[in-house]
Amino acid sequence: MTTAYQKLTHSFTRLHRYQHLMSIAGWDQMTFMPPEGRAARAAAMGEMATLMHRTLTDPQMRDWIAAARSETLDPLEQANLTEMERAWRNEAVLPEDLVEARVLASSRCEHAWRTLRQANDWAGFLENFREVVTLSRRAARLLADASGVSPYDAMLDLHEPGMRSHQLDNIFGAVKTWLPGMIATARERQSHTSPILPRGPFPIESQRALGVKLMERLGFDFSAGRVDVSIHPFCGGVPEDVRLTTRYREDNFTQSMMGIIHETGHARYEQNLPRDWLGQPLAQARSMGIHESQSLSFEMQIARKLDFLTELAPLLNVHFGRQEAFDPANLLQLTTRVRPGLIRVDADEMTYPAHIMLRYEIERALIDGEIEPEDIPALWNEKMQAYLGLDTRGNFKDGCMQDIHWPEGIFGYFPSYALGAMYAAQFFATIRRSAAESDSFAQATDWLKQNIWIQGSRYATDELVSRATGETLNPAHFRAHLQSRYLGG
Amino acid sequence: MTTAYQKLTHSFTRLHRYQHLMSIAGWDQMTFMPPEGRAARAAAMGEMATLMHRTLTDPQMRDWIAAARSETLDPLEQANLTEMERAWRNEAVLPEDLVEARVLASSRCEHAWRTLRQANDWAGFLENFREVVTLSRRAARLLADASGVSPYDAMLDLHEPGMRSHQLDNIFGAVKTWLPGMIATARERQSHTSPILPRGPFPIESQRALGVKLMERLGFDFSAGRVDVSIHPFCGGVPEDVRLTTRYREDNFTQSMMGIIHETGHARYEQNLPRDWLGQPLAQARSMGIHESQSLSFEMQIARKLDFLTELAPLLNVHFGRQEAFDPANLLQLTTRVRPGLIRVDADEMTYPAHIMLRYEIERALIDGEIEPEDIPALWNEKMQAYLGLDTRGNFKDGCMQDIHWPEGIFGYFPSYALGAMYAAQFFATIRRSAAESDSFAQATDWLKQNIWIQGSRYATDELVSRATGETLNPAHFRAHLQSRYLGG
Repeated sequence: MTTAYQKLTHSFTRLHRYQHLMSIAGWDQMTFMPPEGRAARAAAMGEMATLMHRTLTDPQMRDWIAAARSETLDPLEQANLTEMERAWRNEAVLPEDLVEARVLASSRCEHAWRTLRQANDWAGFLENFREVVTLSRRAARLLADASGVSPYDAMLDLHEPGMRSHQLDNIFGAVKTWLPGMIATARERQSHTSPILPRGPFPIESQRALGVKLMERLGFDFSAGRVDVSIHPFCGGVPEDVRLTTRYREDNFTQSMMGIIHETGHARYEQNLPRDWLGQPLAQARSMGIHESQSLSFEMQIARKLDFLTELAPLLNVHFGRQEAFDPANLLQLTTRVRPGLIRVDADEMTYPAHIMLRYEIERALIDGEIEPEDIPALWNEKMQAYLGLDTRGNFKDGCMQDIHWPEGIFGYFPSYALGAMYAAQFFATIRRSAAESDSFAQATDWLKQNIWIQGSRYATDELVSRATGETLNPAHFRAHLQSRYLGG
Repeated sequence: MTTAYQKLTHSFTRLHRYQHLMSIAGWDQMTFMPPEGRAARAAAMGEMATLMHRTLTDPQMRDWIAAARSETLDPLEQANLTEMERAWRNEAVLPEDLVEARVLASSRCEHAWRTLRQANDWAGFLENFREVVTLSRRAARLLADASGVSPYDAMLDLHEPGMRSHQLDNIFGAVKTWLPGMIATARERQSHTSPILPRGPFPIESQRALGVKLMERLGFDFSAGRVDVSIHPFCGGVPEDVRLTTRYREDNFTQSMMGIIHETGHARYEQNLPRDWLGQPLAQARSMGIHESQSLSFEMQIARKLDFLTELAPLLNVHFGRQEAFDPANLLQLTTRVRPGLIRVDADEMTYPAHIMLRYEIERALIDGEIEPEDIPALWNEKMQAYLGLDTRGNFKDGCMQDIHWPEGIFGYFPSYALGAMYAAQFFATIRRSAAESDSFAQATDWLKQNIWIQGSRYATDELVSRATGETLNPAHFRAHLQSRYLGG
């Protein structure tokens, strides 16, 4: 006889296979799809989203979950059931018409955003964006009512299960007390040095070859994944076939190179999720914050260090011709320069949290109904002034219209970026303590594999982090990391 | 109130969207997917095939079709309903477990075939192939029982609706009486001329650029499609986003070039199916034979003519450097050489039908249970000897194991290739009659667009062809075409 738990695993395997087709279609949309394919693709993916919602909210699902709770399950099955229930609950409270309306509105808004951002057209954007906010608030309210948290916290929980805004307020509140001062001190220190800039052009074919070399060195499995080009780099696909992307500029290779290293961190997490459980919720990455901690482990903790850059320098000489700028010490200076700027994705490690705090504060107020979409530009400017001393008035393109997340109806995701940096610093503090000699790449990735990657969603985030590091999230490690790297300890 | 017909259109739109994801995943599988993605992809596509079968065979479908028959429909809706009913009937007779078993067995066999063919391992192949034949026979029997035709005819009908083997026997029986003699005469005539061979290498980047140029010239819409590389060239994707592929060899550009021209014929048909009906069965290509008639219209009727080759010659000079071999008259000789060979996909226009007749005779006997899989090699050799005078004993690789169709469980498809050549000849006989001056490219494609492409599946094949040419399929046009081209009229 098939148990209720087994029936659930079959349904989730089916969902995983549907998601496989969605992931590949989504990857294709960003990489190779010609423009006229857009409407048909949106319709096909929308249809699939509806089907997945319907599959997950099938009335039987509730009964199976209830029945499975009283079946005898081992701890892994129990953890899997917990994740199934979470996935089910988050979908079951949303009516199908709302799910469909959100897909359509955000697809329309995201598409409009692509041109409106270029045109710096905030008013035009607002017309499309209002509907996205209205529908997102409605979804957040339904999720909130079901879980007893605030609407924004309900959204946050989708990406960062267990995290609440009062924790973020504490974390970011503390960061705000020391970050502006630390940025000022670091900039003052760096004003005495001027790294040599590499001279381009850097042919795209050479950048591509270098990227592949680095991915191989960083352990990416090319028999189970690819790297391609897209305007907005991402790591997608499925664990068995990870698709990451980058973009190239002939006048600058570091952006693409660091982007590839970043995405390779995401990719190794995906490629090392628990194989025996693939297809089940247990085998999914723990949270977006933990996912980002892996990309930032690669990009910030591993790649921006002298031992890695010493290995990198000869590769740069081979691919771009010998340059003085490729001296490891110079590369370190280049990749750790602190420079407040308007664009989040171009931000350095130290100013990055400011970009996140700003977005977090605005999107929380927006979803909780404390502000309206038209209030965003003024708030954006006010906070950019306060955190980074930059004026963004009238510059919507490089201000509140710069990210794809809000146009796509994604709220509660931004904090994951900052949390990821904090988790990464905490992990590497532990790795350094436990390392016999140096924190070599092999030691570090073995630690990440054992403690994070193969754990999937077995434990709640707090437990995962405690088991790995002996304590729950402690932002002091991030501050110490910045201090050590930028203020010399 | 929603009519039964409207309910049907909604279901078929949904199926079309599912098919969109399948097509893109299938295209990706052939072009970019890394090897380790195979199992997960097969599982995902198998799941989707099951879902589509289930959607099409939903018990409500029968009732809606019955009800729609007595609703007031205009002629186009009526034609759409006819196609819906055909699609439904062909699926409804197949139980889900048989559908799933066929997907699994053919996926396994096709995968094994890739290496076993290289190893010339017929015995190893047979082990995988038996199951495919058993399951295909079972499906053919169920389809046959429901429609009152023979099992093979039931398979044939899936690809070439309305066509029956007794018609093919007549057509191919006639071809057999004149083809061997015509091949001998053509070869004798060609023995007095020896075209100059182009000298390679032909850099792949130049071939790619030439291919894109030709596709543009042939009217391919790159805003709604792409060209990529795969081992087995095909035309896939969806009408809004047509994906064709080719393969390149540095020592030979004509294969890839003619392949691209061929696939562009398929692509233009897809890109010009009736836009207002996209998503409905009415907007699908009429049959595989008609589809092939479009690719062969481009490859054989348009491209292998002096006016096209005169336009091509300067392009070759630009892309590969000037060569005497690129003289139009020489190109015509090169592309119309008659040379019996072992490989179907490399065959010239005149010997090609022999490859098809051979396969047709074997697969019909196989599906109707007159022979067993182990009988194939001897029959293959016997027929290759009879039709083309070639010995294939012991050479399974370039003999009965050369095609992907049978390993994939596709039977009844091969005749479409020969029928396509015949339809193309018939269409161009009409185009020449109706052309004011010369049969220019624009005139020809306009005729094809009006008479074939935008008609979709509005008419049954016989009616489509009669309306376009004044008569149903008449193989005399194909014979006349060969005579005119190869025997000087």
